[in-house]
Amino acid sequence: MKNPIPLVVIDGGGSGSRLRAVDADGGVLAEATSGPSNLTYGVDKAWRSVSSGLETLSEMTARPVAGARLWCGFAGGRSPQKQAAFRDSDPFGMAEIVIVTDGVASLVGAHAGLPGIVLAVGTGVAAFALRADGTVVSSSAWGYKIGDEGSGGWLGNRAVALLARHLDGRHPEPSSLFNQLRLEVGRDFNAIQLWLADADATRFASLVPLIVTEAEAGDRVARELLAQAVEELAIAVRAVDTGQPIALLGGLARVVASRLPPDLKARVIPAKGNALDGLQIMAAHGWRSEDHLPLEAVM
Amino acid sequence: MKNPIPLVVIDGGGSGSRLRAVDADGGVLAEATSGPSNLTYGVDKAWRSVSSGLETLSEMTARPVAGARLWCGFAGGRSPQKQAAFRDSDPFGMAEIVIVTDGVASLVGAHAGLPGIVLAVGTGVAAFALRADGTVVSSSAWGYKIGDEGSGGWLGNRAVALLARHLDGRHPEPSSLFNQLRLEVGRDFNAIQLWLADADATRFASLVPLIVTEAEAGDRVARELLAQAVEELAIAVRAVDTGQPIALLGGLARVVASRLPPDLKARVIPAKGNALDGLQIMAAHGWRSEDHLPLEAVM
Repeated sequence: MKNPIPLVVIDGGGSGSRLRAVDADGGVLAEATSGPSNLTYGVDKAWRSVSSGLETLSEMTARPVAGARLWCGFAGGRSPQKQAAFRDSDPFGMAEIVIVTDGVASLVGAHAGLPGIVLAVGTGVAAFALRADGTVVSSSAWGYKIGDEGSGGWLGNRAVALLARHLDGRHPEPSSLFNQLRLEVGRDFNAIQLWLADADATRFASLVPLIVTEAEAGDRVARELLAQAVEELAIAVRAVDTGQPIALLGGLARVVASRLPPDLKARVIPAKGNALDGLQIMAAHGWRSEDHLPLEAVM
Repeated sequence: MKNPIPLVVIDGGGSGSRLRAVDADGGVLAEATSGPSNLTYGVDKAWRSVSSGLETLSEMTARPVAGARLWCGFAGGRSPQKQAAFRDSDPFGMAEIVIVTDGVASLVGAHAGLPGIVLAVGTGVAAFALRADGTVVSSSAWGYKIGDEGSGGWLGNRAVALLARHLDGRHPEPSSLFNQLRLEVGRDFNAIQLWLADADATRFASLVPLIVTEAEAGDRVARELLAQAVEELAIAVRAVDTGQPIALLGGLARVVASRLPPDLKARVIPAKGNALDGLQIMAAHGWRSEDHLPLEAVM
């Protein structure tokens, strides 16, 4: 059998993972997708998805993965305990396993390893900045339970909360958003309680298209909700702001882009690359810590 | 064996249940406590607590409970499906089982069956009014996931969310509340994520004494949080307002009482009775529906 794949980079999220086998010169040997590998939901679960993806890459390249270097950007990857547990459960015998958060991988990819800001907004939200001195700072990203202000999960949750206030008389103003929401989540207290029983950030985020449609049709409540979301996102960006270019990522990027305050909007640029590209750059420079990236090498 | 107990009234909540055996003339034969019987957490679980309490009453009075009338005020008792399921699983053979929410039972008890308003605020919150025409209206009480604005769970959640905003630079203002919270929930991102993993409304509500202490010591952030909570509670009361007297119930009643707007504060009276008293009144008048109580009988 041939030499092992030199490097595998993995972008591991809550709905799926993408893996890329990389040659010694940085060329892409193969790419594969696999199941979710959010470390928050367990190291064993993540390894199952990663193993399956690695085996696919091994078949595609006809090369073993044992002995490869692994550079992972995992959702929930910031916990040192989870990182250690993931490394300790390695069933392949990798040469090295480096773990950073998927957000930092996206940040490095979006600006090709140069200083810049990323606002990632989908079901959840995080703002990241890579500063000229190589430090990485972030804001928001605390998760759905206490935060993710301005995200899809937050927007949907606020919309249902407003519907509840409308139905019990605390928000008397009518709105076509409320009429549409009632068709979706239920017409009265009991129906809404049933809908809420299994509701998580993903279910709340599923209401975002309805909110956007109503806002664009001119509904005042929907417009205010979107405006509040964008205000929260702007606060998150300003908390890490360095004046560098801003890349918008995630399912809500397009909705947010046109609504940002002018000073931030003027600095929005398309991402130069994705999280896998970012991990390749990190591996090429040997950047192992997400808290400080020694940019001297690239600037 | 003697005749069965004529009437048992049950105040069933999420942390425990109280049961009272009542004689034909309304005299109290015995009282007992038992485990939780919030219908939201399952009818079988509720029946286990209720059965154990009923057996205690039977022993205390040396009378059987089979054949008794049962008047229950259950947390989560508003769902017709859960009410039917509870009645259908009756293992005793009761003469009748009537179920209302614990909130309505408290409302009737607090005003001795006469028109009035109740604001119940602890881990969650609900405002109820019994109007002069016998209708019952409520606001808030949608639960922790989308509401319970102003409750203990909501207050603690907002406090941790503000701490998160402070730690990531979105809320730069310092506060002694943040210093105290960090000792409780964690000093940094990872520690707080661990605390949050199992956090529910009860865990968030456990932070309320700390918030109240800091507010009373003059901390601006804590004072504003309490002020926002009270504002939400006032909105909930005004949504059902009839101008009648207001009884404050629940673990946060005392904290809230002194902070209500003057016009509401002037109408606060002590509760005349508790939920068991309310259920006795309902049973005595044959009030079976919580949506309309024919007050003609008592006014």
